[in-house]
Amino acid sequence: MSTTRTPGHALPVAVDGMGGDRGVATVVQGVAAAAVELGCEVLLVGREEALRTELARYPEAARRITVVPAAEAISMDESPLALRRKDGSSIAMGLRLVREGRAGAFVSAGHTGAVFLWANTILGTLPGVERPALSAVLPSVRGPFLLLDVGANPDCRPSDLLSFARMGTVYAERVLRVPRPRVGLLSNGEEESKGNLLVRETHGLLKASGLEFVGNLESKDLPRGAADVVVADGFTGNIVIKTAEGAAEVFMDLLRSSVTSRWHYRLAALVLRPALRAAFQRLDYTEFGGAPLLGMQGVVIVAHGRSDARAMRNAVRVGVEAAARGVVGALQGMLLPEGAR
Amino acid sequence: MSTTRTPGHALPVAVDGMGGDRGVATVVQGVAAAAVELGCEVLLVGREEALRTELARYPEAARRITVVPAAEAISMDESPLALRRKDGSSIAMGLRLVREGRAGAFVSAGHTGAVFLWANTILGTLPGVERPALSAVLPSVRGPFLLLDVGANPDCRPSDLLSFARMGTVYAERVLRVPRPRVGLLSNGEEESKGNLLVRETHGLLKASGLEFVGNLESKDLPRGAADVVVADGFTGNIVIKTAEGAAEVFMDLLRSSVTSRWHYRLAALVLRPALRAAFQRLDYTEFGGAPLLGMQGVVIVAHGRSDARAMRNAVRVGVEAAARGVVGALQGMLLPEGAR
Repeated sequence: MSTTRTPGHALPVAVDGMGGDRGVATVVQGVAAAAVELGCEVLLVGREEALRTELARYPEAARRITVVPAAEAISMDESPLALRRKDGSSIAMGLRLVREGRAGAFVSAGHTGAVFLWANTILGTLPGVERPALSAVLPSVRGPFLLLDVGANPDCRPSDLLSFARMGTVYAERVLRVPRPRVGLLSNGEEESKGNLLVRETHGLLKASGLEFVGNLESKDLPRGAADVVVADGFTGNIVIKTAEGAAEVFMDLLRSSVTSRWHYRLAALVLRPALRAAFQRLDYTEFGGAPLLGMQGVVIVAHGRSDARAMRNAVRVGVEAAARGVVGALQGMLLPEGAR
Repeated sequence: MSTTRTPGHALPVAVDGMGGDRGVATVVQGVAAAAVELGCEVLLVGREEALRTELARYPEAARRITVVPAAEAISMDESPLALRRKDGSSIAMGLRLVREGRAGAFVSAGHTGAVFLWANTILGTLPGVERPALSAVLPSVRGPFLLLDVGANPDCRPSDLLSFARMGTVYAERVLRVPRPRVGLLSNGEEESKGNLLVRETHGLLKASGLEFVGNLESKDLPRGAADVVVADGFTGNIVIKTAEGAAEVFMDLLRSSVTSRWHYRLAALVLRPALRAAFQRLDYTEFGGAPLLGMQGVVIVAHGRSDARAMRNAVRVGVEAAARGVVGALQGMLLPEGAR
């Protein structure tokens, strides 16, 4: 295997070739697009034959993509116990490439729990981080914002949410390119007195943190761009993204069934299609590509299980950017106690 | 004041004339529509002169509506301390009409916290209920379902969620007319092992409850009608309804701005308008009218602060139905310990 460097000597990105609900063909299509469009080198980890067969369809991309064989794959419904035994899986192998300094980032659309488990085992967390956070990059009318945690830690303490706020701030500065990101605390009301016990205790910590804390936010204000970094426990954050996903799906279904019910509606819908598509695109998660798992000793990007080729391409792009912009080093600097920096 | 009975000797419904963001005129318009369409008697509580002035516009309805004077009103931004002093407010007065057996239900689009506080003080909770729950009736493609709690109790214990499930089941049977309602537990994954500590502990209680428990549900499945009663702590439930509200608003805004950007889009949008309106109506909270505050010794319906006249009319309808169908008596029967029934 060669670890060819891209111009500027960036490390290649390791990608889980076996991850995602749509199978190998979709992953490879997305990776091939990323390799050509971004000019990046990719280490594609997984079953060699399957990956080579798909890669043969993208001759232009293939010279930037190196297949790294991994005998095992982790399926989406694997039990936590089974996961632990698969240290030859594409997920474990890909993370090892990051630990060994052969890749600058690892990207997977596979089993989120497995990525989390193996990242903990193989990379470990940054000094000062007790709980890494899965961070969704979400659309708002003012541009993308970060919501964390969205599932890694269903139960959190106030100090965890403070650490999420710090990590999110670094990521928003470095990757989303927001100077002095505004930090919001997700709550059931804007007033300081609102919230559950966790939120009420966290409020004071954030106020005293030195971060750009803008106070409690209601979830209805998130798509309006009320903050650049929004912190929540992983249970609540997960509920937010799945509620929005469900609302959007039902909305689209209803719209579709309504507008195709009569011929003149169908005609009008045809005329409107580009406008509708533009509207939906602004709210489309596939545009944003991947959720960084923040707090690990290395860049780890988790793509949605249902990622299509475009989402995979964008997840690889996020991995390249996070690696190039030194997110892990910056996190390390911010999270260490004052004296140790 | 006369407590005229409607045919069938149903008690009148007491309505907070001063509640809601849109002011007295909107409340009176909705109440007038309800009185005429449902043929129900209404006790309209609030500042006499303001209410009479508005009522004069609806002569047909006016003979079914009796004004009950209340000197004070509670504004939407009143502090918890100030609320406690206003025992002459339209909210406190209206709840007293229920306690005294002069009204079968109380309906308010005013300050939710104030309704909760005064309902606790004046009506009290049913025997066996430690925490009343605010229950939203939400749309799904399979018809309306109940989500509770949506804000009354930000921190809950497993036994609270069990009690919400029991109360929701009674309400769904009696008012939504669902035989043997399916109960779901809101979680961040369908598997039994998923959830935060509260959810994992509640799962076992619901399994053993004798209710029609269908397991953990993800919020994205709620609009698909995955259950008739969905239980959550009040913090999480509140986040769900506000996330959906925010998603719908942004979606509509984007759609509107996209389709009005060119003249041929505008034309097509004009043709499509009835179809779009039909789609949105199926997801419109104003259709469902009001959120019952379950667990009180009396029917209390909280309407959305932003309720328009149609939402108010529907909230009154919900109050009439809940009273007529003996929800409180049924709750009492279900919640008492076996031996005491």
